[in-house]
Amino acid sequence: MIVLGIDPGTANTGFGVVARRRGRVVALDGGVIETPAGQALERRLATIHGRLRELIAEHRPDALAIEDLYFGANARSAMAVGQARGVVLLAAGQQQIPCSSYTPQQIKSAVCGSGRADKLQVQQMVQRLLSLTELPRPDHAADALAVAICHANRAPLAAAMGATA
Amino acid sequence: MIVLGIDPGTANTGFGVVARRRGRVVALDGGVIETPAGQALERRLATIHGRLRELIAEHRPDALAIEDLYFGANARSAMAVGQARGVVLLAAGQQQIPCSSYTPQQIKSAVCGSGRADKLQVQQMVQRLLSLTELPRPDHAADALAVAICHANRAPLAAAMGATA
Repeated sequence: MIVLGIDPGTANTGFGVVARRRGRVVALDGGVIETPAGQALERRLATIHGRLRELIAEHRPDALAIEDLYFGANARSAMAVGQARGVVLLAAGQQQIPCSSYTPQQIKSAVCGSGRADKLQVQQMVQRLLSLTELPRPDHAADALAVAICHANRAPLAAAMGATA
Repeated sequence: MIVLGIDPGTANTGFGVVARRRGRVVALDGGVIETPAGQALERRLATIHGRLRELIAEHRPDALAIEDLYFGANARSAMAVGQARGVVLLAAGQQQIPCSSYTPQQIKSAVCGSGRADKLQVQQMVQRLLSLTELPRPDHAADALAVAICHANRAPLAAAMGATA
């Protein structure tokens, strides 16, 4: 099972691709889609959508897992994140790839065992779980790998319980 | 000049197409893109994006005008509106159609002369400005026509002043 994890944002959308093989989760890819601040919003969204289509064509993920809104976000930044989320979910929907959302607390709990873990703890646990030689950087890529791990580890459990992840 | 106006939302995205001809604004099309509540979000966004592409192919608009966030929106609904906005702006960006955002206050001021006009006043002024035989319905279609009128009436002024609308 291959999972494409996404930490969405207009300026920086983190992505991480993991595969679950014989009970272990391994990293296949990770990085950040950056768009220039001076560019028109519709062009920036087209860049994110186009790159997502490339990642989907390359890795053929079975599922997309995406970070949900963080608690305490204000309306203006929530709308901006929503715009990036919209084009990411669209790219998956156009290829019939099922999508799941996880809150930052769910992701931290799944990866670190505590919903209150800080950024460095998440990076360290992502490094350990994926047996990476270095800390995953930047933050957005680490967060995207974390949501992919969260989904990859929940999906078999959910399937065994007859629920949808 | 043809303007495609959009009032974005996941369940209901209103659209209105107007043309500015010899100083008058006329309606070419209007309606609502509805998506079923029970459907997966990524499928609903794909429906909105697909319908937008059809509207753009049919009307070949010179510009897209879209409602911005209303004052007082909470983060959760702002994210939902953002997701619909994202796929609408993407559809325009993929066809190199420039996009402009207007707040509900700007739209009401442009159409009714007051940023505090109510829904019925907006519908009545849209009916009058476009010489429609009936009140435009539903609300989302009327709001989309209103943002299209707002842009159509500002664009010539902005061009004359050397500014971007």
